[in-house]
Amino acid sequence: MNASKPEFRPSGVITLTTDLGPRGPFVATMKGVILSRFASAKIIDLTHEIPVQWPAEAAFWLSHAYRYFPRGTVHVAVVDPGVGTSRDIIAGVRDGHAFIAPDNGQLGSILGELTGTPAVHRVDLSRLQHFRISRPSVTFHGRDIIAPLAADLASGALDLDDLGPPTPEIVPSWVEEPTVSRARVSGVVITVDSFGNLYTNIDAPHIRPLRNPVVNVAGHDIKVRRTYADVKPGEYVALINSFGVLEIARAEQRAADGLGVGRGAPVTVRELG
Amino acid sequence: MNASKPEFRPSGVITLTTDLGPRGPFVATMKGVILSRFASAKIIDLTHEIPVQWPAEAAFWLSHAYRYFPRGTVHVAVVDPGVGTSRDIIAGVRDGHAFIAPDNGQLGSILGELTGTPAVHRVDLSRLQHFRISRPSVTFHGRDIIAPLAADLASGALDLDDLGPPTPEIVPSWVEEPTVSRARVSGVVITVDSFGNLYTNIDAPHIRPLRNPVVNVAGHDIKVRRTYADVKPGEYVALINSFGVLEIARAEQRAADGLGVGRGAPVTVRELG
Amino acid sequence: MNASKPEFRPSGVITLTTDLGPRGPFVATMKGVILSRFASAKIIDLTHEIPVQWPAEAAFWLSHAYRYFPRGTVHVAVVDPGVGTSRDIIAGVRDGHAFIAPDNGQLGSILGELTGTPAVHRVDLSRLQHFRISRPSVTFHGRDIIAPLAADLASGALDLDDLGPPTPEIVPSWVEEPTVSRARVSGVVITVDSFGNLYTNIDAPHIRPLRNPVVNVAGHDIKVRRTYADVKPGEYVALINSFGVLEIARAEQRAADGLGVGRGAPVTVRELG
Repeated sequence: MNASKPEFRPSGVITLTTDLGPRGPFVATMKGVILSRFASAKIIDLTHEIPVQWPAEAAFWLSHAYRYFPRGTVHVAVVDPGVGTSRDIIAGVRDGHAFIAPDNGQLGSILGELTGTPAVHRVDLSRLQHFRISRPSVTFHGRDIIAPLAADLASGALDLDDLGPPTPEIVPSWVEEPTVSRARVSGVVITVDSFGNLYTNIDAPHIRPLRNPVVNVAGHDIKVRRTYADVKPGEYVALINSFGVLEIARAEQRAADGLGVGRGAPVTVRELG
Repeated sequence: MNASKPEFRPSGVITLTTDLGPRGPFVATMKGVILSRFASAKIIDLTHEIPVQWPAEAAFWLSHAYRYFPRGTVHVAVVDPGVGTSRDIIAGVRDGHAFIAPDNGQLGSILGELTGTPAVHRVDLSRLQHFRISRPSVTFHGRDIIAPLAADLASGALDLDDLGPPTPEIVPSWVEEPTVSRARVSGVVITVDSFGNLYTNIDAPHIRPLRNPVVNVAGHDIKVRRTYADVKPGEYVALINSFGVLEIARAEQRAADGLGVGRGAPVTVRELG
Repeated sequence: MNASKPEFRPSGVITLTTDLGPRGPFVATMKGVILSRFASAKIIDLTHEIPVQWPAEAAFWLSHAYRYFPRGTVHVAVVDPGVGTSRDIIAGVRDGHAFIAPDNGQLGSILGELTGTPAVHRVDLSRLQHFRISRPSVTFHGRDIIAPLAADLASGALDLDDLGPPTPEIVPSWVEEPTVSRARVSGVVITVDSFGNLYTNIDAPHIRPLRNPVVNVAGHDIKVRRTYADVKPGEYVALINSFGVLEIARAEQRAADGLGVGRGAPVTVRELG
């Protein structure tokens, strides 16, 4: 762990990941609040369709997507079922990107191993007026607290240090990392895309040691191929997808429906015997 | 009513509220038209899912959301079932924000009480060429007339006065304001969000005089609480939500389905006896 | 055909048309890649709901929508079922707008008649490192190859000539142009919007010669009117819509459901006898 102050030079870009859905002006008012503080912010919607009961998906997308944005981007995650209770807000820096979210496990996989260094801070919610935040609503801290702080981080008006003290621990990720034994990797399905493809928490390096990997999910053995085009219509295919994770698809059909599985389903990869 | 000229200093931000849905490039071409006139416009989607037969919802969101945007924002509303008929277009300024929409009630609740002052103008549709608008389509004035005018207002190229004369009246809001008697407030459900929560037109000040308010909707009595977390899963809860309006929810379930009600349903709040 | 070099002066605007759906951060990472190369890009979503098996719809929307954007816009289309196979990527300029897409017919209707001129180029995929593109994924060239090239075209860092050689031919459009005989025009339904309205590939000029045109679709004869308001609720109406194409709608109902037709359905227009 590097205990020196992490480098964060704002690029002016802010991404938003929430469970607010595409309807209604909830997300829009977060953007309005950001623009009110930082008129030249560039705001990109990562996704607003995280299932509220499955914040692991926010962590998954953030951890796999942030590298595609300019260094200096502020990534905001607001899946916040505990709003109105006494949950905290945390912020941290990794690889030159900043992250801010409720402390409920969403940032566990990104910032967890940096806790105890100057890279991860707990927002001092007793000093909201210092941040020019007055009378936040009880039910939408994403708009009333997190958005203004993100704007100030992205504009350079606030530094990570200004938010509150470094924190020795944060709530861990909701989903275990895959377990790896000599010839077997065990993980879970993290999300299902609009085509019914299954994305797992098994990354390319996990299965690289296997010479001839085969995936088992819902009782089906599926060989790992290079691309969707390597199988015939109706056949299942497993591949390392464009985010570097193991994906299970079905050519021209919905794998999730065919296999009858969804988020949380166990997936194993073993050496083909 | 203040009869002096209202102050509007453009911030360069434009919001869009329509019934065009998230599919198809209708909204995109509105943005293209705006950028063609005002290259540095910052365009924010408020929502594009207003039900075409329920423009009251556009008014509701606009009136509750505009304060979260920078002063000097131009708010465009295009729920326009009367396009192609002789309905007018109006524009006005309130609290330093500008609004432009077809004159069909969408701006009634925002601009209604300012009619007759220099704050509300009727667009002179006989002078389109003066606005550099030629041959608008018959069916999409949002793109062909309103978007270019909004761009010019947001860039400062046009002033409210340039659009047309002040107007003594506009089409009123589609939905009555709540009626308030000594111990009873009567309103309606304005919208249902993607979680099945019901939003009413009853604002926090309406129920503030009640010491122990209870909400009645679809025959159910529901106590007003502070936050969603104050009830157990499956229980109904009423609260003043993050937009300051009375909302009826059901913990971890869909209130709209459980109560069997939707837009337009009557809601009353009374003192618990 | 004009054989001189086509004029393209970047406006900084980029539009995106894909089949990636509104969920998930696929589109977002394309935007991140663009902003990483060209920080002041203005990125507009045209639509992300092109059906993967019907790329004709991408061509349809692009060809009818691009004129609404500033000259100098780069239009990106990524409906890419052949990703991972040996399909090419093409780029071209028309009317001062640039277009880039997999060479699978999406740009056939826009660039087809310009092939063989300096306006249409085939991207030299053997020179990716020259474009500062390293190790693209196998399954998401939209993010890993097309987005960075689009960013460089939009910023002016790359010129059309830099991408690769002019190409004498590209894959033609997936859908035939309408056939026109003296008193009859035959086309197809290209898309269905969220209101169930049918959009055809028959443009206004095709039917202009007819004095009293009547549309036949699914056995129904439907007169061409000026606007939706010209018929009663429940009645079908055909009209030249705001994109200049023949549209079939049903007042206050869904024409697609009532007629039982969708994409690809044949549509004819004839002189009313």
